[in-house]
Amino acid sequence: MTIAILCTGMVGQTFANTLVAKGHTIFMGTRHVADTLKKPGNPAMNLPPFADWVAAHPTVQLTSFAEAAAAADLLINVTAGTASVAALETISEQNLAGKILIDVANPLDFSKGMPPTLSIVNNDSLGETIQRQFPDLKVVKTLNTMNCFVMVNPALISGPHNVFVSGNDAAAKQMVSMFLTEQFGWTPASIIDLGDITTARGTEQLLPIWIRLWGALQTPMFNFAITRA
Amino acid sequence: MTIAILCTGMVGQTFANTLVAKGHTIFMGTRHVADTLKKPGNPAMNLPPFADWVAAHPTVQLTSFAEAAAAADLLINVTAGTASVAALETISEQNLAGKILIDVANPLDFSKGMPPTLSIVNNDSLGETIQRQFPDLKVVKTLNTMNCFVMVNPALISGPHNVFVSGNDAAAKQMVSMFLTEQFGWTPASIIDLGDITTARGTEQLLPIWIRLWGALQTPMFNFAITRA
Repeated sequence: MTIAILCTGMVGQTFANTLVAKGHTIFMGTRHVADTLKKPGNPAMNLPPFADWVAAHPTVQLTSFAEAAAAADLLINVTAGTASVAALETISEQNLAGKILIDVANPLDFSKGMPPTLSIVNNDSLGETIQRQFPDLKVVKTLNTMNCFVMVNPALISGPHNVFVSGNDAAAKQMVSMFLTEQFGWTPASIIDLGDITTARGTEQLLPIWIRLWGALQTPMFNFAITRA
Repeated sequence: MTIAILCTGMVGQTFANTLVAKGHTIFMGTRHVADTLKKPGNPAMNLPPFADWVAAHPTVQLTSFAEAAAAADLLINVTAGTASVAALETISEQNLAGKILIDVANPLDFSKGMPPTLSIVNNDSLGETIQRQFPDLKVVKTLNTMNCFVMVNPALISGPHNVFVSGNDAAAKQMVSMFLTEQFGWTPASIIDLGDITTARGTEQLLPIWIRLWGALQTPMFNFAITRA
């Protein structure tokens, strides 16, 4: 499959690492290719300078958001949530139409200090905002409630845990659920379909407790599980 | 122990049922005693007319919020979150001073239809609002992330699951954690201390997904678990 990963940060690199290994053709979209190639690494997060990462992944094609989307069958949005709409606006309508967008972004607002608040919250969500603004996309919100290493490798967490999907298009949600199962190893029983895209309000509002749990547990390597009676 | 349960609805009755059986002296506070005694039952929720419930619980003393708080060592806030501050305002400062308030309420706003939104959210929470407005209270937010039957009987959920505590006073959080363990059977390992009262933003914002999960799972008998690597 040809997959466009929109954004080149740690989450995007984590998806690319896994999906390249699975044999997919990966286009990585960014706002300015030349600037992205100059991005320094972040030793604290174990991130190499971006040019080094690209050199180590010769099959990944670094392009504009628009070129990545034009080439791809499936789009994965891992941009910062506050920049997602602007990134998608650089892509022509015809290169979005009918395609599935896996929306992993959260509208975290770091501008008022730590911990972040949400720039869209309560009676709206980023998932809904994207679906409303780009009605020809099939937006499926998922994976946004955990660390990126857990997203692509749920076996990192030893006990039972869950991933949620939200979206208006039932077939698109089924496709994405299969994708989660086949590419990343999520079991069908661990995937909870919450309903239409408005249920993204529920998963995006998990971020405030996720961030506090990171502090309380002193590790980001955990996930939410829903335990039934 | 003498405990004031602030509000007489299903959650208050559930707490009273359990705590009376444990031998505690229970004062149930309400805005208007006479009106409360006229409250009809709700057969859909298996709730008898309130006067019948009182007749079946002769040791429970139904009083005003103020009288309940004056009599009690420990207060439990189970009012509707949008009415909590007004209820506490009817209690004199000296009858709140130094006491622990277990805050179980969520600021759910049903005025704009279903599902509810939150009337306080994102950069504030109900827990913080109460702590700010009543600085002599020791507010501990807990139990607000699950069905009331699970609150008082965590064994109803068969797998591992968690309860969160948030509050500024470390000793008060320890007292409340012991209370959860001794009265309701929460294991110490299942109790996660998230930090100060601002972390109530995290637990109150679990309500939007809790409500969608109730719909998706077709039962309210579930709870959140945090699964670690």
